[in-house]
Amino acid sequence: MQFTSEQHLDDGVLEREFTLGEIPGTLWTPGSAGSSGAAQAAQAAPAPLVLMAHNNGLPKAEPRLVARARYTAARGYAVASIDAAGCGDRPRSAADEQTRAELRRAMRAGEPVDEIFESFIGPLVEKAVPDWRTTLDALLDLPGIGGPVGYSGGWAALGIRLVVAEPRIAAAGFFAGGYVPRAQREEARRVTIPLFFLLQWDDEGNPRQRALDLFDAFGSKEKTLHANPGGHTGTPSFELEDGCRFLDRHLK
Amino acid sequence: MQFTSEQHLDDGVLEREFTLGEIPGTLWTPGSAGSSGAAQAAQAAPAPLVLMAHNNGLPKAEPRLVARARYTAARGYAVASIDAAGCGDRPRSAADEQTRAELRRAMRAGEPVDEIFESFIGPLVEKAVPDWRTTLDALLDLPGIGGPVGYSGGWAALGIRLVVAEPRIAAAGFFAGGYVPRAQREEARRVTIPLFFLLQWDDEGNPRQRALDLFDAFGSKEKTLHANPGGHTGTPSFELEDGCRFLDRHLK
Repeated sequence: MQFTSEQHLDDGVLEREFTLGEIPGTLWTPGSAGSSGAAQAAQAAPAPLVLMAHNNGLPKAEPRLVARARYTAARGYAVASIDAAGCGDRPRSAADEQTRAELRRAMRAGEPVDEIFESFIGPLVEKAVPDWRTTLDALLDLPGIGGPVGYSGGWAALGIRLVVAEPRIAAAGFFAGGYVPRAQREEARRVTIPLFFLLQWDDEGNPRQRALDLFDAFGSKEKTLHANPGGHTGTPSFELEDGCRFLDRHLK
Repeated sequence: MQFTSEQHLDDGVLEREFTLGEIPGTLWTPGSAGSSGAAQAAQAAPAPLVLMAHNNGLPKAEPRLVARARYTAARGYAVASIDAAGCGDRPRSAADEQTRAELRRAMRAGEPVDEIFESFIGPLVEKAVPDWRTTLDALLDLPGIGGPVGYSGGWAALGIRLVVAEPRIAAAGFFAGGYVPRAQREEARRVTIPLFFLLQWDDEGNPRQRALDLFDAFGSKEKTLHANPGGHTGTPSFELEDGCRFLDRHLK
């Protein structure tokens, strides 16, 4: 893991860009971890790590993800995001580009898009998981960062796959507003860690009943649904704190 | 309003029984309000008032209500509960007793109970509202207690009726686990204040879809649904704090 740039933010958070082989990532650490040399970081309690992924391969620099990451880091977490294979600024195959163009066309035309999403998101999730696990290995080797690990993603589909594959993740927050492939809907019952599930009640592109069915399917004994009125991007700001309070209960 | 007994609790909360005409009630006030004479109370900022009613006429001394009231008072609220007409220890008509007996019989036999509930809860809500409004008038005349006023009730049906009738209530928390008569389901769209709506996902006696439909029907622009797995009495303890944080956002 190579750090390529760093920026000190007002709230004591250190924001660093890194590369790990072909994977570009960003790491946000709180004032206590990593910012003042290995010796000091080793003395402080390690900051619990939170993996944060944006829906369906959107870039890690997406402003809402960055705002959430900074807020979470200021609350005492090390937060990491990457552009996994096929996501964000990573190269896309010609076939991927074609599928995305077809998706945009179908959405504009108001045609059903489930099958396009299925053919596009399913493989994207499968390809993203190894990159996230490689990143997790490298992050846990850094001084000042420790377990337990949380996942707090806009991207529920990736979260489900990752949580089922990765026993080091102890708690997860998912946003319901995104296409979840059939494979992940089916393996939802294998998710048994504590879950925080955020739903926008009037999300234009994501059927409410499908989100409620997914919440119902999770195997977790502790799972909390928070639903608020409004469209896809209308999540009220207090849910940011609620999400962190959920992580506090399970990671601190 | 006549205070008939008082008890100082460990967390600085003062618990007082009162009577107001035929209405018996309990008032919990935080350390800063009411406990040290009118002069001191008048100097401190008045504590916002929270009305707390238990489902379907259960007594104000019901232990879960008392625990919730004490917790809320320790967070800086004046909290009041009463046995309204026909509720708790108040006299019941022979017809009421007969309906309750019929309800118990039908529940044991696994028969449908909606029509019995309708004939029993509907009038109970109507009769309870005037007693709650009389109590609200008297409480707001006390030193150290002020607006804005919140409702935080197990009893959603009473809450809906009261919130629609009573413009002084600025925010309300409802528990979805209780029969809501048709009249209140219909007037839910007239509820426009901020709402906190708590649902037990596997509540034995309360159909989930009916609760989701009720949440959908509320006219409030800010309404938050919190749903957790488990049966009627299984609400996780962290929801107590979440409910208070909701009140903090709107009453403090």
